Amino acid sequence: MTEPSADDSEERRRSIGARRNPDTQEAILDAAQAIVEEEGIAGFSIEAVAKRARAGKPTIYKWWPGRTALLLEVYHRHKPANVHMDTGSVEGDVVAFFTGVFAHWGNTGAGQVFRFIVAEAQRDEAAAASLRAYALERRQQSGQIFERGVARGELAADIDTGLAADMLAGFAWHRLLTGRLIADPEEMRQAARQLVRGLLTPGP
Amino acid sequence: MTEPSADDSEERRRSIGARRNPDTQEAILDAAQAIVEEEGIAGFSIEAVAKRARAGKPTIYKWWPGRTALLLEVYHRHKPANVHMDTGSVEGDVVAFFTGVFAHWGNTGAGQVFRFIVAEAQRDEAAAASLRAYALERRQQSGQIFERGVARGELAADIDTGLAADMLAGFAWHRLLTGRLIADPEEMRQAARQLVRGLLTPGP
Repeated sequence: MTEPSADDSEERRRSIGARRNPDTQEAILDAAQAIVEEEGIAGFSIEAVAKRARAGKPTIYKWWPGRTALLLEVYHRHKPANVHMDTGSVEGDVVAFFTGVFAHWGNTGAGQVFRFIVAEAQRDEAAAASLRAYALERRQQSGQIFERGVARGELAADIDTGLAADMLAGFAWHRLLTGRLIADPEEMRQAARQLVRGLLTPGP
Repeated sequence: MTEPSADDSEERRRSIGARRNPDTQEAILDAAQAIVEEEGIAGFSIEAVAKRARAGKPTIYKWWPGRTALLLEVYHRHKPANVHMDTGSVEGDVVAFFTGVFAHWGNTGAGQVFRFIVAEAQRDEAAAASLRAYALERRQQSGQIFERGVARGELAADIDTGLAADMLAGFAWHRLLTGRLIADPEEMRQAARQLVRGLLTPGP
């Protein structure tokens, strides 16, 4: 019988050597996910993930600059597909976004994970860089809602789709971070209506 | 010569006894402010504030449930008056809000203080309650921008002014929390325009 530590390190070398990158990445993400689910965010560290995934810490750092970046990817890959839907109208897409995001935050542990990530990013430079990069990716993704609207002629050609995406995300984040998730579908529809149609009295 | 600790506690009793409540409150807020400025947020505790203000901790807890509530009041009382202006138009008021808030966050330490407060509120229940209460007060205050617009007939009577206020705040918070403060006045005007007029193609 081999010593546990030698066994461990041999198995680690073997599994890293045998796997192609996408598999290793998946194994790392699976391990990270399992740790969050079983131990909560408090137990989450690159060290713990490396141990569980039987990967070396350098392998993890090759793809993710730190634990917040890894946590963000775990968080993002479990976001339901219905958050980004092409319903054929901008208002429909925005309602789908709010519906999907608020349900995901409220019904799973995802809201807590995301709150933790935002908090980390306010104190730690590496976490801040990861959250900023994540926000810019989401800005581009949600921006497509508004770009499709412009392409259809539904939205004005001179709007700034990035600012619209920031307003969409900002509204949702603000409600999460102040513990006021929206559950009422009518409130979501009203928010979507105001975001898209604005607030002005309709013209004559 | 008296022992320092006895001297200290005598002076503390005297100053509390002699002051009327508003003065004590001011003294506490001044002490809290001075600690944030001189030692940063890391040195900020009810204990440190009590010592500097020569007040008892129970006196502080009488008015503020915890350090985040106290920090929020210090933060808020230094917000410049130009954040909430009645310019005569909703879009003008929203531009003034963005201009004032982003300048305040960017040019003073206030942005860092507020980021710290938001972070605290994601992990600590008392801090969360304080931030939520603060957000609801601000919602009411900023909501007046939109209520004035409705009263003038500028905005549609059936809008939800609270949701509009959340969108205003959410957009600004999101930019702060992802390290993307807006400095360009044209970007602020465009954001204000989209918030108020919406995104739709103008009708024929």
